[in-house]
Amino acid sequence: MPKPDSSLKQYDRIIIGIDPGTNVMGYGILGIIGKKPSLIAMGVIKLSKFESHYLRLRRIYERVLGLVEQYLPDEMAIEAPFFGKNVQSMLKLGRAQGVAMAAALSRDVPIAEYEPRLIKMAITGNGAASKEQVKEMLRRQLDIPEESFLPELDATDALGAALCHFFETGKPEVAKGAKSWKAFIAANPGRVKGL
Amino acid sequence: MPKPDSSLKQYDRIIIGIDPGTNVMGYGILGIIGKKPSLIAMGVIKLSKFESHYLRLRRIYERVLGLVEQYLPDEMAIEAPFFGKNVQSMLKLGRAQGVAMAAALSRDVPIAEYEPRLIKMAITGNGAASKEQVKEMLRRQLDIPEESFLPELDATDALGAALCHFFETGKPEVAKGAKSWKAFIAANPGRVKGL
Repeated sequence: MPKPDSSLKQYDRIIIGIDPGTNVMGYGILGIIGKKPSLIAMGVIKLSKFESHYLRLRRIYERVLGLVEQYLPDEMAIEAPFFGKNVQSMLKLGRAQGVAMAAALSRDVPIAEYEPRLIKMAITGNGAASKEQVKEMLRRQLDIPEESFLPELDATDALGAALCHFFETGKPEVAKGAKSWKAFIAANPGRVKGL
Repeated sequence: MPKPDSSLKQYDRIIIGIDPGTNVMGYGILGIIGKKPSLIAMGVIKLSKFESHYLRLRRIYERVLGLVEQYLPDEMAIEAPFFGKNVQSMLKLGRAQGVAMAAALSRDVPIAEYEPRLIKMAITGNGAASKEQVKEMLRRQLDIPEESFLPELDATDALGAALCHFFETGKPEVAKGAKSWKAFIAANPGRVKGL
């Protein structure tokens, strides 16, 4: 497993965004200094080379755990559609989300999830924005020069989830709700094991 | 975490059966000596006391990992319905399955899954058998005295999955298929990390 970089110490808060799918998994890591978010890393994990469903789940678990150990995020934001074509695809998506969540849960990283429409709304102001529009707004909001920002689009969804989480948890009126898991644990220390 | 018991050494093979749900999770542990299966442990993990979906997933992950570390199973068998009422319930079920699978994957335990109908067929000869019938056949097949076998029914489904896996992997014609994950890894050592 890669070790955490000492340059991570400069950040007040680190958010990992994940877009778990069964063919491609995207991730994006945001670092916050004061109230300013910036890009630490982003990428995709291609799963289609693995024929077995279990090998794909295993790879998602290992890679997300690797990212959690490398970047030591304070929170995880997942892009999570709540509706899908059919029960079969939703079961597979649920499993992919479940193993990614387990990697966070195993390291005590709280999880928040956001619907794709809410992420697009938070980033572009339009819940029906295209992936290209989301990408361009991410680039501007994170002050990345155009020529150096050529990510795969599955990774921009994950980075969008992380930035959406940053915006949502910064709003005074939602701060309690969006951190309800952390708040619940703090309020009920006896009910959660191993913390 | 509980430590493995030295009495586990007597078994040639240990199979953990899991019936992951979002309200109750059942488990059953089978020990095999020669060709004879016997009951090591079974029980249920009640999740309805946790209001948050994440706390339920976290508890499933922790408890399944605890069982894997305590009983050192060679394989995991999951009762996995492939159809459900709606996409919402299948997404939640997929997540519950995913975190249970992650606990096995994190300890290199291969996973097999069986539809409820196949489990009932393997145990009772009738794919539409009642839970009570499955329980009674499990009791007879594992030589458990009637008065000492009063399990909760969610645990019998999990034990049924473990016994079904034992039967299925014992058949010469399915031995390759049912262990395909192990076989795949053995045949493709370069494609799987950390083994």
